Amino acid sequence: MEFKISKEIFLKALQRIQGIVEKRNTMPILSNALLEVGNEQLFVTATDLEVGMKSSYPTQVIREGKITVSAKKLYEIVKEMPDEEIHFSTKENDWVEIVCGKARFNIVGLSSDEFPYFPKVKEENFILFKNEILAEMIEKTSYAICYDETKYNLNGIFIKGIDEGEETLLRMVATDGHRLSVSEKRIEGKVGPELAKGVIFPKKGIFELKKMTEEEAGEIMLGFMDNSAVIKKGNTVVVMRLIDGEFPDYTKVIPAQNNCNVLIGRDKFLHSLKRMAILSSEKFKGIKIDLNPQLVIISSSNPELGEAREEIEAQYEGNGISARFNAKYLIDVLSVMEEREVELKLKDELSPVIMKAAAEDDFMAVIMPMRL
Amino acid sequence: MEFKISKEIFLKALQRIQGIVEKRNTMPILSNALLEVGNEQLFVTATDLEVGMKSSYPTQVIREGKITVSAKKLYEIVKEMPDEEIHFSTKENDWVEIVCGKARFNIVGLSSDEFPYFPKVKEENFILFKNEILAEMIEKTSYAICYDETKYNLNGIFIKGIDEGEETLLRMVATDGHRLSVSEKRIEGKVGPELAKGVIFPKKGIFELKKMTEEEAGEIMLGFMDNSAVIKKGNTVVVMRLIDGEFPDYTKVIPAQNNCNVLIGRDKFLHSLKRMAILSSEKFKGIKIDLNPQLVIISSSNPELGEAREEIEAQYEGNGISARFNAKYLIDVLSVMEEREVELKLKDELSPVIMKAAAEDDFMAVIMPMRL
Repeated sequence: MEFKISKEIFLKALQRIQGIVEKRNTMPILSNALLEVGNEQLFVTATDLEVGMKSSYPTQVIREGKITVSAKKLYEIVKEMPDEEIHFSTKENDWVEIVCGKARFNIVGLSSDEFPYFPKVKEENFILFKNEILAEMIEKTSYAICYDETKYNLNGIFIKGIDEGEETLLRMVATDGHRLSVSEKRIEGKVGPELAKGVIFPKKGIFELKKMTEEEAGEIMLGFMDNSAVIKKGNTVVVMRLIDGEFPDYTKVIPAQNNCNVLIGRDKFLHSLKRMAILSSEKFKGIKIDLNPQLVIISSSNPELGEAREEIEAQYEGNGISARFNAKYLIDVLSVMEEREVELKLKDELSPVIMKAAAEDDFMAVIMPMRL
Repeated sequence: MEFKISKEIFLKALQRIQGIVEKRNTMPILSNALLEVGNEQLFVTATDLEVGMKSSYPTQVIREGKITVSAKKLYEIVKEMPDEEIHFSTKENDWVEIVCGKARFNIVGLSSDEFPYFPKVKEENFILFKNEILAEMIEKTSYAICYDETKYNLNGIFIKGIDEGEETLLRMVATDGHRLSVSEKRIEGKVGPELAKGVIFPKKGIFELKKMTEEEAGEIMLGFMDNSAVIKKGNTVVVMRLIDGEFPDYTKVIPAQNNCNVLIGRDKFLHSLKRMAILSSEKFKGIKIDLNPQLVIISSSNPELGEAREEIEAQYEGNGISARFNAKYLIDVLSVMEEREVELKLKDELSPVIMKAAAEDDFMAVIMPMRL
């Protein structure tokens, strides 16, 4: 195998897969990238058996073939190369020679025979998404993904499409048991049976999907095969194994009878929470919120440091309610909202509270209070 | 004690001392900042008993007095405050109230009685330095400071002034036993007995001095008292205890008979070293340099990864020499040089090598080779 490629393109190709390759080094081949050349194309593949990525790039092929090389070391080498053409070739016993300018590297590879099979993707039944829609929905839910690996069914985002005739209501939900976030957007057309039933995308795959939405403009194609989601954009395909588990019935978590509605300015609320959180304990970040007519009082205290208190004007007509929250949970929600006014819907001091934009209905978070 | 101050000024005052306060929390008072008001001024002092800093800022004094408060917590609080005037006052039992906009903090302080004495500085026998000169000399030597605390006499920069009549040759030297760096600059006037003999500034003090040279324009005044150096710039005074030890006789380390002189382009050399270091081991970063007429060959190898090699044109007429170096040591030197051409002076494969700018004589590094 032998090819020539510009440093810029090769570097971009190798940078893209750095988030995919296995870092724990349990199976050495999974920390390698598979490089294949043919048809004036370089194909770069990486996988950790859960999420895999394959991309193609224009290249000058001199001799067809394939090899695998440490993705990290190859990236480091190419990154430090001068801005010239890179000449890559395989030698005997899976050795690889990389030449650029006067620099010459001989590094040991591994045969491509050992590399896991990357499924052939048929472009059938793909659904088309605009970058911005997916980017926004992931932004507004991913902060609530659960990182506790024993709750494997919460380690991702639940995605479901609800048939509305000409349109489909796409819904993303994430929860870690303490808070829940729901984002909804209408898209044109219908979705297939997988999305109609609902699937759980793994957290690592979600972050790769987010990165793809942030790269160049274009549309994202989504399909399903063999318990995996297939995502395609431009010359890149990502295949991720869906989480095989039942997502909890989140509709039961969303309270229906929270009648104490408060309207409050997002920026003022956010900055006050950041201030009050300074005196809450490092671990629990507990702050207290007191609702009074036209007034929200936020306060915190810490036996070692002291106490803090701030009043914010708010539209509220109901009874006095006091509740404690982890300030980080409230700050996370306010940080992903762009709207100027936020609505809090409470019932009492121990029931979950709803947070949403005052003017919009396509995003909602539910947060459990802390017990006193 | 009671005063009003703009958030911006108070924040800057607290930011400045964050590098000074003790982080290990062995003596709680050392993690506090001393705040004193009087004469329409706020004085902020911090010290870890080795390096102390005191600055003054304009403020509206309502009631004179002093108190100490956690420097880190106070900084965090002020940083999150709205951009309004901050009202600071002491209450009973060393409590402090901080009010800004509608936010109100009550935090516990410690009496100023416990705070270490900060020496009164007399502005006598101060020497004036230009910011740029000190900044450059520190930049060119501080990378070689020894971080091994058992070699306490190397944990700083040795500074000496050599009388040359109308002028003084100021010299800074740092070494960690594996490499040595010397920077020299001529300044006008004479220096006092301390600098004439030579003093060792501690590493933490050096980094504070470097920060001061990088702040706004102006001159830096340097004086000595009671085994301490006193540095003054604008409204800030830093007092640092000098390292009480003998700096090794660095003149003996600088080889005099290195007659194999190589001229090499700095950028090419630096980038080649960075490339070759990728295949050297994580810990020792060993690379090999072979001198040949008109040619330097840099190479590295690693039993697990492979090998790398690069040729660079160079002006060299002597015999073939091969030597091994820690690539990081060479890279550190090249990184602080701005000149386009660097000169290497070698003797043989095990003797220390000199690195300097080809056209300048005010900077020199000596690096020990690695044994094979």
